[in-house]
Amino acid sequence: MRTDVITIFPEYLEPLNVSLVGKARARGRLDVQVHDLREWTYDRHNTVDDTPYGGGPGMVMKTGPWGDALDETIADGYEAGAHAPVLVVPTPSGRPFTQELAVELSERPWLIFAPARYEGIDRRVVDEYATRMPVYEVSIGDYVLAGGEAAVLVITEAVARLLPGVLGNAESHRDDSFAPGAMADLLEGPVYTKPPEWRGRTIPDILLSGHHSKIARWRRDEAFRRTALNRPDMIERCDAAAFDKKDRETLSIMGWAPEPGGRFWRRPEAMEE
Amino acid sequence: MRTDVITIFPEYLEPLNVSLVGKARARGRLDVQVHDLREWTYDRHNTVDDTPYGGGPGMVMKTGPWGDALDETIADGYEAGAHAPVLVVPTPSGRPFTQELAVELSERPWLIFAPARYEGIDRRVVDEYATRMPVYEVSIGDYVLAGGEAAVLVITEAVARLLPGVLGNAESHRDDSFAPGAMADLLEGPVYTKPPEWRGRTIPDILLSGHHSKIARWRRDEAFRRTALNRPDMIERCDAAAFDKKDRETLSIMGWAPEPGGRFWRRPEAMEE
Repeated sequence: MRTDVITIFPEYLEPLNVSLVGKARARGRLDVQVHDLREWTYDRHNTVDDTPYGGGPGMVMKTGPWGDALDETIADGYEAGAHAPVLVVPTPSGRPFTQELAVELSERPWLIFAPARYEGIDRRVVDEYATRMPVYEVSIGDYVLAGGEAAVLVITEAVARLLPGVLGNAESHRDDSFAPGAMADLLEGPVYTKPPEWRGRTIPDILLSGHHSKIARWRRDEAFRRTALNRPDMIERCDAAAFDKKDRETLSIMGWAPEPGGRFWRRPEAMEE
Repeated sequence: MRTDVITIFPEYLEPLNVSLVGKARARGRLDVQVHDLREWTYDRHNTVDDTPYGGGPGMVMKTGPWGDALDETIADGYEAGAHAPVLVVPTPSGRPFTQELAVELSERPWLIFAPARYEGIDRRVVDEYATRMPVYEVSIGDYVLAGGEAAVLVITEAVARLLPGVLGNAESHRDDSFAPGAMADLLEGPVYTKPPEWRGRTIPDILLSGHHSKIARWRRDEAFRRTALNRPDMIERCDAAAFDKKDRETLSIMGWAPEPGGRFWRRPEAMEE
């Protein structure tokens, strides 16, 4: 996979040299090119922004530098043999970036990231490139950042770990929170390792029992409880038919109740967001 | 504000030297201390992880190095005059990190970050420190990362921009997506700046009209439309009483319909997640 990042803070992307993404690059699974947007400015102040039409606070990133930067980046990539680019624009106004979208992006050969600063990029830039390639405007969460660079790190890491040959242990996707499969829609429960006692704290006996099916059941119960506590929205999205007897007991104990029709469970009033 | 980060990848935190967070540090608004967890290992392989009790794939971070690292970090902080620490543990199993939580954390004087790698930190570490300080286990979104370091960057940036004297323009929080106020629960719409024409693309006439109330209305309509398209969940959470005539028209055109009781609007079936 090839990725290009166009930014006014190239040094923000240093983490792409370390850890998992760095390893993916060293192994030749990922080619990351970081470009300084200001290389495509032609005034002596290297201006990339201007005041918004219609008034209001903040600044808007100009069409000119972005258009020139994207054109040259796209041309260089094609020349280097890349194909089928998509444009990824991190923005709080985008659709949510999810594990499903990470999988979708991991199957593309070439991602071009356009992280914005200030109030965002002049809309015409996205309108223009949307006629030439798929554009993903995505939000990594319901909070406001100073710019899109942190989101580029997040998206690149989530995508890179899905590339073939990047994660060492082929099994270690299996139990991921948000991964499809048996644990779908459940968060992971608590984990423990040696020593068996630390500062007077022991581990649950069941984990030493060697009884695999009981351990699996315990883990599911813990995961279920944590999900109901931290992510009631995930439980509410589930068809109640997916819950077994123990799940229903757990929900009851935590104050949840089935909807009149019985298809979904409703969280306790006190927990409403 | 003081923050400490304990990590096995200190170099991943380099972005905390640049851009907004770097500026906040230079201005003395934020003191960031990054610590290498491996400094608190005493074997020659600097081991921080071991196999999980109960079996299964992956590795779990050990209690010992984390306990020692936290104890020393906490003691050093108190000695330097910090007080009232909270522990922030980024994990996909946590509750969602939101702008509301960013505001809450920005009001605390001292944040200690414990980003995990592998399958997570032995549960006893959180159990232990929860007896000594508030612990926030938070998830920045529904996707899986290689570790919590990217989340530390995200949370620190979201928090730092809320600290007094960090953002230049006092007004620029106002229209943020997810910020409380007039635009509450609406994403931001498109923005434009000079030149008025670029590659044959013009800007909406209304923005040149100088008619402030019409511009405000246009911006609200665009924000509303984008929200209904990219974040139907946000519209569904709104009491229908908050929508004016134009909002209802927009929703109708986009295929939404009021619920039988009339309190909420329902998105078109085709758009169900």
